[in-house]
Amino acid sequence: MPVIGQSHRRIESKGKITGQAEYVMNMELPGMLHIKVLRSTVPHGRIKSIDTSAAEQIPGVIKVVTGADLQNMDIHMHYGPAFRDQPVLAFDKVCYIGDPVAAVIAETAAIAADAVNYINADYEELEPVFDVLEAAKEGAPIVHEVIRPAGSFADLKNLLPKEGSNVCLHYKLRHGDLEKGFAEADHIFEDTFRTPAAVHLPMEQHVAVAQLDSNGRMNIWTANQSPSFIRSEVAYVLKKPESQIRVRVPYLGGGFGTKLYVKIEALVAVLALIVKKPVKLALAMEEVFITLTKHATVFKMRTGVTNDGRIVARDCQVYWDTGAYADIGPRITQKSGFTAAGPYDIPNVSIDSYCVYTNNVPAGAFRGFGVPQLVWAYESQMDIIAAKMGWDPLDFRRKQVLTEGKIHATGQKMTSVGLDQIIEELDRSIEWTAFYKEKQAGAIHRSGSKIRAKGTAIGLKAVLTPSISGSIVNLFADGSASVFCSTVDMGQGSDTMMGQIAAEVLGLPLEKVTVVHPDTDVTPYDTITAASRSTFYMGNAILKAAEDIRDQIFAHVSGKYDVSAELLSLADEKVHVAGRPELAMTLKEAIKDIFHMPAGCIIGKYVFESHYQSPDPETGQSEDVAIFWFPGGTAVEIEVDTETGKIDILHMVSAGDVGKAINPFQVHQQLYGAAVMQIGQALFEECRYDYGQMINANMADYKVPTFKDLPGKSETIIVEVPHPEGPFGAKGVGETASFGVQPAIANALYQATGARVNSMPLTPEKVLRAIREVQQQRTSELQQQI
Amino acid sequence: MPVIGQSHRRIESKGKITGQAEYVMNMELPGMLHIKVLRSTVPHGRIKSIDTSAAEQIPGVIKVVTGADLQNMDIHMHYGPAFRDQPVLAFDKVCYIGDPVAAVIAETAAIAADAVNYINADYEELEPVFDVLEAAKEGAPIVHEVIRPAGSFADLKNLLPKEGSNVCLHYKLRHGDLEKGFAEADHIFEDTFRTPAAVHLPMEQHVAVAQLDSNGRMNIWTANQSPSFIRSEVAYVLKKPESQIRVRVPYLGGGFGTKLYVKIEALVAVLALIVKKPVKLALAMEEVFITLTKHATVFKMRTGVTNDGRIVARDCQVYWDTGAYADIGPRITQKSGFTAAGPYDIPNVSIDSYCVYTNNVPAGAFRGFGVPQLVWAYESQMDIIAAKMGWDPLDFRRKQVLTEGKIHATGQKMTSVGLDQIIEELDRSIEWTAFYKEKQAGAIHRSGSKIRAKGTAIGLKAVLTPSISGSIVNLFADGSASVFCSTVDMGQGSDTMMGQIAAEVLGLPLEKVTVVHPDTDVTPYDTITAASRSTFYMGNAILKAAEDIRDQIFAHVSGKYDVSAELLSLADEKVHVAGRPELAMTLKEAIKDIFHMPAGCIIGKYVFESHYQSPDPETGQSEDVAIFWFPGGTAVEIEVDTETGKIDILHMVSAGDVGKAINPFQVHQQLYGAAVMQIGQALFEECRYDYGQMINANMADYKVPTFKDLPGKSETIIVEVPHPEGPFGAKGVGETASFGVQPAIANALYQATGARVNSMPLTPEKVLRAIREVQQQRTSELQQQI
Repeated sequence: MPVIGQSHRRIESKGKITGQAEYVMNMELPGMLHIKVLRSTVPHGRIKSIDTSAAEQIPGVIKVVTGADLQNMDIHMHYGPAFRDQPVLAFDKVCYIGDPVAAVIAETAAIAADAVNYINADYEELEPVFDVLEAAKEGAPIVHEVIRPAGSFADLKNLLPKEGSNVCLHYKLRHGDLEKGFAEADHIFEDTFRTPAAVHLPMEQHVAVAQLDSNGRMNIWTANQSPSFIRSEVAYVLKKPESQIRVRVPYLGGGFGTKLYVKIEALVAVLALIVKKPVKLALAMEEVFITLTKHATVFKMRTGVTNDGRIVARDCQVYWDTGAYADIGPRITQKSGFTAAGPYDIPNVSIDSYCVYTNNVPAGAFRGFGVPQLVWAYESQMDIIAAKMGWDPLDFRRKQVLTEGKIHATGQKMTSVGLDQIIEELDRSIEWTAFYKEKQAGAIHRSGSKIRAKGTAIGLKAVLTPSISGSIVNLFADGSASVFCSTVDMGQGSDTMMGQIAAEVLGLPLEKVTVVHPDTDVTPYDTITAASRSTFYMGNAILKAAEDIRDQIFAHVSGKYDVSAELLSLADEKVHVAGRPELAMTLKEAIKDIFHMPAGCIIGKYVFESHYQSPDPETGQSEDVAIFWFPGGTAVEIEVDTETGKIDILHMVSAGDVGKAINPFQVHQQLYGAAVMQIGQALFEECRYDYGQMINANMADYKVPTFKDLPGKSETIIVEVPHPEGPFGAKGVGETASFGVQPAIANALYQATGARVNSMPLTPEKVLRAIREVQQQRTSELQQQI
Repeated sequence: MPVIGQSHRRIESKGKITGQAEYVMNMELPGMLHIKVLRSTVPHGRIKSIDTSAAEQIPGVIKVVTGADLQNMDIHMHYGPAFRDQPVLAFDKVCYIGDPVAAVIAETAAIAADAVNYINADYEELEPVFDVLEAAKEGAPIVHEVIRPAGSFADLKNLLPKEGSNVCLHYKLRHGDLEKGFAEADHIFEDTFRTPAAVHLPMEQHVAVAQLDSNGRMNIWTANQSPSFIRSEVAYVLKKPESQIRVRVPYLGGGFGTKLYVKIEALVAVLALIVKKPVKLALAMEEVFITLTKHATVFKMRTGVTNDGRIVARDCQVYWDTGAYADIGPRITQKSGFTAAGPYDIPNVSIDSYCVYTNNVPAGAFRGFGVPQLVWAYESQMDIIAAKMGWDPLDFRRKQVLTEGKIHATGQKMTSVGLDQIIEELDRSIEWTAFYKEKQAGAIHRSGSKIRAKGTAIGLKAVLTPSISGSIVNLFADGSASVFCSTVDMGQGSDTMMGQIAAEVLGLPLEKVTVVHPDTDVTPYDTITAASRSTFYMGNAILKAAEDIRDQIFAHVSGKYDVSAELLSLADEKVHVAGRPELAMTLKEAIKDIFHMPAGCIIGKYVFESHYQSPDPETGQSEDVAIFWFPGGTAVEIEVDTETGKIDILHMVSAGDVGKAINPFQVHQQLYGAAVMQIGQALFEECRYDYGQMINANMADYKVPTFKDLPGKSETIIVEVPHPEGPFGAKGVGETASFGVQPAIANALYQATGARVNSMPLTPEKVLRAIREVQQQRTSELQQQI
């Protein structure tokens, strides 16, 4: 294939390198006003009064808007992808420290930022709840008295609790007979693993511009991963038809999940409606911290194994702290929840996954969509069990790993899951078997206070299913083409990859294909740019739209030459007839032939949707819960300083089964990027709270990986088990390398020191404490032996 | 039909009334530079030198570019829709006073306008030619030594002359046996009619912005009627694939033909490429005059009639002064040329239509595309003949008017031409028959020096054929929709009308349909917005794209309920099942049912092209030369002041057969607007030249109709003879009322005074002179009788 499988340079690289690529942050419109948001200073309370009079006196302030003002408008007050629980501006209750309660609209951003300090908001404080387990208990303070599921959440209505609980979704999976399984087990292991909240921190903050145009249509330019959703949700808020809302997304400076669904778009749209001028809201980086986080989790896991190394039962209790608003938390609770037992063939599984409101910052999608939190737990326990039982942990995995045709805990038969190949790649690349044999023989790789050791982990994620991607491809008269798709190029290189798919089908060089950026007026519906779904879903839509064009050309040419369309092919910008090279004509000639003039265009279109069998609400069982699954694994060699507790990563291997790498260089970049992002999660990133106030909500106090945190050596390995329905066999890759980093490091720490830390991140303090506990334990064991 | 045939208010009216509608003139881009063009001061010459050094010294001037600079670039130097004869900037010859020879790029428009005065251009003057008949002669100075037909003009290659002639196209039509026809005639009439050049003068000047984007793509925003053509022609000039050129057109402040094809777009694109910054060129109104004109014509017509009132032979010699560059003149020469014998069933016809280069301002399309010049001649001669023969001129027309099934001079059998109905509507509305009877009885309606009288005229035009219109319609999940079309809303209300067609098919109110403005990245190919073609061509594309959506919905619903799709219909935003009202579901429900969630979209698309039989190059005969024909007619009552020669229009009736009025109010507006525009052409508009210099090229000296020139009473009459292939039966209307105004006024002048002026416009001076000649003639006849 001349285009697919080639590491084409990104089509936008020049624009980005030269600083000319279009971002919403750089947008200016004539007469544009600027917004600053006032945020709640209490974690839970009722708004008593908001005095805006002083702020409104400040020169350059156009208007100060509160939730009470919005109540006088004919709009819906709440939005949200799962539950419509989040107000455009709080008007009754505030639910966390950071909750938007008023907005200043001013001539400049500086005036707005100043004026917001002159608003006086007064609250009646309510008892808050911050701990996810406490919040899930009966009698806890209730964050939301009423739950309003969004229309798209109707399929989960059976999983919604009675009102008056912070548990806003309880997902259940029942596979096999858990009690019977545990009865068959020779050993039962029970552990609890915790992860903290963390933040995404794309380089570009949330930013949006809204403008009511002359025909009353609302135009929104936003740094968002889900333009189609923004359109429908803003249409809902404004009570307008979707055709009256136009959402455009240029390049995105990173997303990682924080730019999914409505974040600031409903507010800017409503404010543009009020002032009838263009308005812009760009969050300060400090506000990004308190807009959305990764779910903190508590995962209680009980696993029964037999003496011959088989897992026969696993019981999972997962608590997701979704914060003050559900955002997409309920879907994470469900869709990542069902993977909690791991990528293993376990006959008896029970999962209870709870989405729990608290008065913390809202939590939502974060690269991996909850799966890394689960993998960290189940892959830590795999090594705990293996160590206790004296088994090679990789062999223990090999014994039950899901392979082709085996049945997942959801009831789905596995197709195209190269988990076994990933295990072998990890083993080979990190030289695990040799390490483990040496280790068993008593070798310790020590250098002063530092000890080196290795660890591995694998994970599996289901792609978002069901979902929808539409595409249009237009072939121009000169044989060049444009691709319309609502996939957001947020740095992952989707424009290039989508262009490659169209170019391959049409026999064009990539340079002749233009990819139109998301614009809901023209680019067809796409669920979201997330969940490692775009290559498969949108790739298929583009593939089939391009094939629609190809078929129209073939129909003409086969008629013209009276040859079967099966003999025709597109390559080198030409239509070829097998065995008749003299009949080859350029695409340009073919189009001229179709239209009898050098003009016209050929349009192809396709709306791709997944097959899906809605799972049984009581058992979570379905034969077809995900259109594809994608596995990843990580192997690391670390060095831990036993005097400081600091972990250095010497070597990191990320392996992922991507089906088919459309653009191998980009796939390597995705694997590497996801893994590096996880290093921060594993070693030092966490949101710290004091009575609901995030106390490290800035780039000085919240640490992200820098160059010196990178592994000494990094490897990314592409495994290709083609998916029968993937475009050219491709699956997804955006999240693949995020799964195994945390447990692989934790497992290596164990191999190095015997220490286990059951809560992320593995900070030097926690590691040192755990090492000392192990040392004390060993000392006490030795003393007892004496 | 709930939407079609309804006079919906224009969807853009609010934006236009409030001054918020988007026009290129209002566009600003960060860092945008401004252009002013230096123009040739000689009508014909070779460029000896252009000294830009002084201009380049002026602060704020970024660069001065000449044709010689462009020769160093890897671009094509010439563009043009018929012949590529027009240089981006003149580099060798200049061909008229006004020919662009250099461009100043400066920080502000004022600096550019100032700096252009400091450029010193030196020419070697060549002998010019200004008169179309002189220019057509052998031995005339040659304007273009070489002719380069554009690719789309290949069909006319047989009509191209040898090089070394100013006749750049000679179109021939031969129908029947002309000699035999004249031999059968009892009387032969020979007349010559002239029309001058005139200008379009839309309220908005030519204006375009070009920006090379970060990925090297050329973005052009232009006030132009032909975005698809601009894309392909600029791609040709820049030697880039079409996918690398993006052309967007917002609302247009009028076009009338002057904004067709490349005018300033190639220049702004090349300059943007040079300076790598956004550039804007807005012509001054004075430059609009010397950018494009209406073709001046000389029409020599010889007609043979029998004593029983039948025209048996007509010989037409039409000379079109296409000025210094051909623009679309060759197509006018051909496609309007073939209508020169009028809408009559004449057995023996010969037409020779000559497109002739001169050193005047280039001429191109002007509302009516040459047909008004022809109708003015043939309908004047109809009345001349009738008067001479003593026939009622309307009866004379009735006798040979083309009706259903009769054969046009091109050989095509007429379908859907309501000419006879138009004659009756004119007769009825102006009370012609009563007037003519009174007139025959000797009545003269005199009031002081003023005489009142009536006149009529009819005309027929073929729509541009072949041509292409593509459309995409996208139905959103909430049952609202968007229509993508490259038709430019230039004031004719196309957005509203196109939206109505989609709304009708989809059973939506118009308010739920958005029309996406031309953007060549997304709106499919469309030949041009001109030629009264959009309702039929684009209307059909939209109709069929919407039906594509309808069929997808019906396929689903018929499967769901196991009912025949023929029982299904869309209305009131619902799918209805005939006889089963309980099964009706909203579109929103149907889409949810298709996608199993309240999301997704349904895409419909269609590329409509006309059937067409290329005419024989020697005879112009074809069975299928136009996909439809559209007739119009005018009746007037005028009052002419015999002391001043001034004509006032008391009553004007414009009747047009539009097939079906999609939006009757807009159709009335089109009829009225075209007729009013013709009043100027008839009574006072003309471009005056002095040795190639247009001497009235400004709004002070060039007169256009004002409110006081409007008829005392205006009527517009819609005739509807549905076209079997038109969308809902519709044909076109944009030019219909332009045909008959000039001859109807001339014929009324004759009825009032017996005077004939055989050259347009009918200025008071010319009218007075003609009246005096008649009076002198009568006096001398009376004297002879005495």
